[in-house]
Amino acid sequence: MSEFSIIDEFFKPLGLIGHRHSTDIGIGDDGAVISCPEGKKLVVVTDTLVEGVHFPLETSGYDIAWKALAVNLSDLAAMGAEPAFYTLCLSLPQRCTDKSFLMDFAAGLKDLASKYGVPLVGGDTTKSDRLTLTISAHGWVDDTKVLRRDAAQVGDKIYVSGNIGDGALALQALLKKYDAALLSATVFDKFYRPEPRIKLGLALGGIAHAAIDISDGFIADLEHILQASNVSAEIDYAAMPFSDSMKQYLQATHDAWLPLTGGDDYELCFTLPESQLAGFESVIEKEDFGVSFHSIGSIVPRTERGVVWKNAPNLDESISTKGYEHF
Amino acid sequence: MSEFSIIDEFFKPLGLIGHRHSTDIGIGDDGAVISCPEGKKLVVVTDTLVEGVHFPLETSGYDIAWKALAVNLSDLAAMGAEPAFYTLCLSLPQRCTDKSFLMDFAAGLKDLASKYGVPLVGGDTTKSDRLTLTISAHGWVDDTKVLRRDAAQVGDKIYVSGNIGDGALALQALLKKYDAALLSATVFDKFYRPEPRIKLGLALGGIAHAAIDISDGFIADLEHILQASNVSAEIDYAAMPFSDSMKQYLQATHDAWLPLTGGDDYELCFTLPESQLAGFESVIEKEDFGVSFHSIGSIVPRTERGVVWKNAPNLDESISTKGYEHF
Repeated sequence: MSEFSIIDEFFKPLGLIGHRHSTDIGIGDDGAVISCPEGKKLVVVTDTLVEGVHFPLETSGYDIAWKALAVNLSDLAAMGAEPAFYTLCLSLPQRCTDKSFLMDFAAGLKDLASKYGVPLVGGDTTKSDRLTLTISAHGWVDDTKVLRRDAAQVGDKIYVSGNIGDGALALQALLKKYDAALLSATVFDKFYRPEPRIKLGLALGGIAHAAIDISDGFIADLEHILQASNVSAEIDYAAMPFSDSMKQYLQATHDAWLPLTGGDDYELCFTLPESQLAGFESVIEKEDFGVSFHSIGSIVPRTERGVVWKNAPNLDESISTKGYEHF
Repeated sequence: MSEFSIIDEFFKPLGLIGHRHSTDIGIGDDGAVISCPEGKKLVVVTDTLVEGVHFPLETSGYDIAWKALAVNLSDLAAMGAEPAFYTLCLSLPQRCTDKSFLMDFAAGLKDLASKYGVPLVGGDTTKSDRLTLTISAHGWVDDTKVLRRDAAQVGDKIYVSGNIGDGALALQALLKKYDAALLSATVFDKFYRPEPRIKLGLALGGIAHAAIDISDGFIADLEHILQASNVSAEIDYAAMPFSDSMKQYLQATHDAWLPLTGGDDYELCFTLPESQLAGFESVIEKEDFGVSFHSIGSIVPRTERGVVWKNAPNLDESISTKGYEHF
């Protein structure tokens, strides 16, 4: 298929998703023109996925597309922003230019984009011998509700959403380092179809002090908050939320740090001041966020070590601040 | 070098370029937070460059970075937007993670970004075996000054800036299909370091009916205007602006359509109503746009054929609407 027929058949329909009426010009010009809602700040995030690096070669078009958009929406969630629109740059090897792959790919984008009403407003399609996708997602946020990394304060309670480490566990199975048959389907779902915590991010605006999405591994991402805020953290290993599959893995392998150093969680880690704890508890009681929450520790004054562990098995200092390293 | 030391050493300084005070949060959080100027529309453009597809493997880091940002700024110019900020996603093969390549790469970005005062506000760095860059550039435009593709009207005069075809001519030499020694240095500059026509785009706002940047080849890009506006064009081949190197090439090869079907021009093609011609002439007399302008034809009512050529040598119907095809 030619570049322009791919755009017409598969991507232009994705421009019709959402009813925000903010797209003055979408796909089909040199650029998109967007109306900015009064009094809102623009949030811009961008992430690239490369085949063989971020997903196995045999991953379906649907899952590749879902994940590429999800990891970007997850960044918007971590900023407390409401998703508005996105662009897609796609470098396609020849095998991915056939109709069935592209249909599947577009379906993955459509299903996730429809959940949040975000239209595709532009992009670029080029050839390459390695499937590479870059999405840039855009959202709006009230000035007073921006979730930053550098605003954690001593005394804050530290929370995470969902279970930690299932993305990394799925990868262990995909790399044939652990028996895939021992994992529940939800573990693979975490890897292939993460759910961006948009509703949670919006609810945390004006309540949480600091937030980040966990994508490079829990410890590495928490460290980003700690360094930016110039604080340390006391974390209770025993309070870390692990799935049943993960608990079984830990029992079998004693690989206690996998869930905390592996990537691909796409959960939020956030800090709440004491004064907001009751308010937060009442919000999560009233509303369904589709995910559980876990209080795992506290922000403490900065010391040499970023994270101080309680109840941690086999503590290996060298690994305790390590996350996913690209190079 | 690790991902985070690359960001700290080479990319964070690029966030300090420009004095627009619109970046509330830049590099170093999950996303950038930007203040929107009142009454302006946001323009979003994005383009990917892949090594071996958009530039030869031996291209310097400086030139790769320059071109990647330039082609995006060129899209902003074609929308009539003032550049504001950009993001960069970089997929790096191992050989590009050494200091000397990255220093050179950052210098190319810095030099072009400084010209237009645009800060880098975020991005992503991943590994790949093929150097791939996606930039997304953002700008602001007055609602009444947006330059669209679909607004050409019968009777408009058609203009292009600069010379057409030099980028394609440089590529012929790089592919060893033509003797590089016969080309002036400016021809290679067009390929490696195109100058985005930002000032021209801003001046055309409210004056031009339609505009596009010529990136896939003159005919293909003009066709985008014609189809979107449901009109045709009469173009005088003899009025097309060619460099001396191009004229020599045409004499030697009789390859009359290379300059009109090759890509990489990054000049603007725009249409002006009769009523604005005098105004436009007086603007280009008073101000220096750093480029020449050429009136090459007129918009006519839509017929089956998009472009009707006058004074055209060796007209080959099959090629007359062909531009760069990726697949």
